[in-house]
Amino acid sequence: MGLKGYTSPRTPEGRSSLVPYPPWHYVGAFLVVDYWADAEQAAAFLPEGIDPHPDAGRCAFVAADWQSCSEGGDELLDPSRSQYKEVFVVVNGLYDGEEVTTCAYIWVDRDFALARGWIQGFPKKLGSIWVTRSFGLGGPADPGMQAGARFGVTCAAYERRVAEATVTLEQPSAGGPFHNAGPIVNVRHFARLAAGQHDAPAVHELVRAVSRDRLVSDVWEGSATLALHGAGHEEIDALAPVRIGRGYRFTFGYTVDDLETVREL
Amino acid sequence: MGLKGYTSPRTPEGRSSLVPYPPWHYVGAFLVVDYWADAEQAAAFLPEGIDPHPDAGRCAFVAADWQSCSEGGDELLDPSRSQYKEVFVVVNGLYDGEEVTTCAYIWVDRDFALARGWIQGFPKKLGSIWVTRSFGLGGPADPGMQAGARFGVTCAAYERRVAEATVTLEQPSAGGPFHNAGPIVNVRHFARLAAGQHDAPAVHELVRAVSRDRLVSDVWEGSATLALHGAGHEEIDALAPVRIGRGYRFTFGYTVDDLETVREL
Amino acid sequence: MGLKGYTSPRTPEGRSSLVPYPPWHYVGAFLVVDYWADAEQAAAFLPEGIDPHPDAGRCAFVAADWQSCSEGGDELLDPSRSQYKEVFVVVNGLYDGEEVTTCAYIWVDRDFALARGWIQGFPKKLGSIWVTRSFGLGGPADPGMQAGARFGVTCAAYERRVAEATVTLEQPSAGGPFHNAGPIVNVRHFARLAAGQHDAPAVHELVRAVSRDRLVSDVWEGSATLALHGAGHEEIDALAPVRIGRGYRFTFGYTVDDLETVREL
Amino acid sequence: MGLKGYTSPRTPEGRSSLVPYPPWHYVGAFLVVDYWADAEQAAAFLPEGIDPHPDAGRCAFVAADWQSCSEGGDELLDPSRSQYKEVFVVVNGLYDGEEVTTCAYIWVDRDFALARGWIQGFPKKLGSIWVTRSFGLGGPADPGMQAGARFGVTCAAYERRVAEATVTLEQPSAGGPFHNAGPIVNVRHFARLAAGQHDAPAVHELVRAVSRDRLVSDVWEGSATLALHGAGHEEIDALAPVRIGRGYRFTFGYTVDDLETVREL
Repeated sequence: MGLKGYTSPRTPEGRSSLVPYPPWHYVGAFLVVDYWADAEQAAAFLPEGIDPHPDAGRCAFVAADWQSCSEGGDELLDPSRSQYKEVFVVVNGLYDGEEVTTCAYIWVDRDFALARGWIQGFPKKLGSIWVTRSFGLGGPADPGMQAGARFGVTCAAYERRVAEATVTLEQPSAGGPFHNAGPIVNVRHFARLAAGQHDAPAVHELVRAVSRDRLVSDVWEGSATLALHGAGHEEIDALAPVRIGRGYRFTFGYTVDDLETVREL
Repeated sequence: MGLKGYTSPRTPEGRSSLVPYPPWHYVGAFLVVDYWADAEQAAAFLPEGIDPHPDAGRCAFVAADWQSCSEGGDELLDPSRSQYKEVFVVVNGLYDGEEVTTCAYIWVDRDFALARGWIQGFPKKLGSIWVTRSFGLGGPADPGMQAGARFGVTCAAYERRVAEATVTLEQPSAGGPFHNAGPIVNVRHFARLAAGQHDAPAVHELVRAVSRDRLVSDVWEGSATLALHGAGHEEIDALAPVRIGRGYRFTFGYTVDDLETVREL
Repeated sequence: MGLKGYTSPRTPEGRSSLVPYPPWHYVGAFLVVDYWADAEQAAAFLPEGIDPHPDAGRCAFVAADWQSCSEGGDELLDPSRSQYKEVFVVVNGLYDGEEVTTCAYIWVDRDFALARGWIQGFPKKLGSIWVTRSFGLGGPADPGMQAGARFGVTCAAYERRVAEATVTLEQPSAGGPFHNAGPIVNVRHFARLAAGQHDAPAVHELVRAVSRDRLVSDVWEGSATLALHGAGHEEIDALAPVRIGRGYRFTFGYTVDDLETVREL
Repeated sequence: MGLKGYTSPRTPEGRSSLVPYPPWHYVGAFLVVDYWADAEQAAAFLPEGIDPHPDAGRCAFVAADWQSCSEGGDELLDPSRSQYKEVFVVVNGLYDGEEVTTCAYIWVDRDFALARGWIQGFPKKLGSIWVTRSFGLGGPADPGMQAGARFGVTCAAYERRVAEATVTLEQPSAGGPFHNAGPIVNVRHFARLAAGQHDAPAVHELVRAVSRDRLVSDVWEGSATLALHGAGHEEIDALAPVRIGRGYRFTFGYTVDDLETVREL
């Protein structure tokens, strides 16, 4: 009896939730660009409780072409419920002296991923995202994981291109990417609509991501380009690169079914 | 100083929130079908605190073709940020003896509308929605508001058609629609991800919608058809019609900047 | 016996053609901006057989929010098969001394409209198009047809915004729009793929649009803005405005089931 | 001087054509199901000039997750111009006694692929297509190329699911797939709109695909399911399976810059 399900819509049988119960298993192809934004601007995006990183302005741009499922994996056979693409920017900082990252901007292209992100503290919006793929076959349309292979990513939101990046592979990477390596600490937030409480969110807390069963392929690295474009409704140009590091390509997987609240805001 | 905005992403300037601050002004073209679902099934969709309606199984199917904006109306000039379409089903019930409705299922086609709905207690998912329009000009492609005019609506989610309805206008309506008339009481819900708390949502409350500055056009009514289709991930077929009442066409507008919590769940 | 249908796919029953048989009935809400591009650039977009207009650089930017159907109107009840939005630019010229327009660029958001356009000589691509709507009800989200009402349109293609315009109504129009008034003469083109014939199209002809049963609402006019943005895959910035005339808002309908070939190219 | 480009829109610089000049290089992940439709129905989909296959009703269902580019490969760095997904059904037949296939139905999800298909004689419409991917990494969200790996594909058109299939891999394949192996002979068709000529297409010919530089990965095979659903605007249910053979998974690439016309229709 009663309504069932991990999220709305909760229903008699509980099969309808936009986000199914954890655990959520992920695998995806990644393109990462280590870069530095203007130090002051980057610091301004850090939530209360996270201090600026000593390597001022340190950020990473990340694109992921994901496939995910819940336990049992049924979504994999109805792949519109398992695939999505995502672009995000993390700003590096210190939490209690530890190196962390925090997600300032993130776009995904599917609703279940948007809501699943909000629950984890990722400030997701919908966008339209495209990432060059590698097929492991060869030929002129398949860049491959090899020196000279070129990959591109674009992200558009509300009918504007807000981000574009390219990576040209040179060699296997020794340890990178670095700017996306720290644990991620995000702001989980859910607003109130009651009159007088529009600035008194029902949920407002600093949360630290928890994951398990991480898998990663070999990582290749090379030169990179990155551009971030603002709009009336986006301030991501404030995080535009002032210096660009290396770009990286790899495949990554993990499982998520936990989250740690580290501080109420 | 500090991050600003009504919702995530909260940023230094506060221009980036997926949902801007209330008030939210709406205007839209509506197609409504008064109908009855199986009484037991309809009752099973009522959240704790709402009792079955004495007119057992009473439901309404609603399609709305919306344009909305926040104060100042800037979204109206960048219309991808102001327009969306929506399909929903309300089940009728009693709250403390008063006739109310509650939204069991709702699909919208834009992200800002999805998140704005979650904040109001609407269990929104993304769908693809189409509604016949009237242009007030005439000719074979323009049904008009007149006897014999035919309107259709379809809704698809995750690559399946889940709802379709038609209304054929006959005459101006005396008082309808009726099944969507009561105040709407929804479940506001925001899940927790911390291990062991997947069934202990951070927000779980019965909320009653509050609105102001309501405007409505003349209403036309006529005969209607309605089909609701289930899927592995949707139980909306449980609310399929066992009897169909009248269909309605009209234009409606209002403003929302408040919400009343009536009960913690 | 045999395969049936107006276009591919042709099938045993003939119900599957991407474009159904003519006649095609249309009704739509229009936003038009009369403007002038650089004279030399505009002339360069004229196909062989059309001479530059004496009012050098004369162009119109047009956005239309359409509903269309074939005979019988069945698509109106399955509105994803009847609705689409469209943005285009026409360059003015002279054909045999007569004032004409020719469509240099056009984006639509549905496949049936794209293929129907190619058959008529409109060089359609897919884009994502949004146009502010008027609902005739009033309130802050409904601009209405009145002095001070503001309308916007945006068009994006391949993840970039390529066009944006606004019109602020001032008064009923005496005769406008003017730059979109002439008969439209387009290039109908269908390429060959056989080796050595990539520049020998199977169809390449100048065609003059034919329509009937035209209906038009009252026209309002006012001030306008317009920006056209280029990209690696678009040269529409070559037609960017050097001078902007008036903007217009109205509703228009017609029927098409004929086309006149005026010259083989 | 003059307008340039392989297809419309043809422009002064020739950078704007919806389809760029051949050659077109392709690489993609394939899911194929060998099956048999009702013999009479399958024969009814054969164009004039192609006789029924002696193995009556022989068909293949194919899903491809493509990446393509023209010479130089610039589209690969702007991947919305290079990636698309596609679902199609081929009916087997005999042309001059030779085993061939012909494409009865095909959906793609991008405009450049739609127009490129029409030029090649593929009767493309737009659809929404999803195909399970393999990432070569492992873990619960990555099926891999191994015994027990499950793959799914869905295709929706005009808001309805029209096709769905699954393949469960068992072992490396010895020679399959078979029903998609023959050369493909399609109908190239471009309609006329002039009054009285709606059934007198400007282009109507049987064309045989020509390709080069074909690459193929190892092929795995296993059991398969397949369902094809009709609609008012689709007759694909006429080609629904009466018997299902094996399913296949592999990666394939080739180059196209030629086409052979074998017969005027």
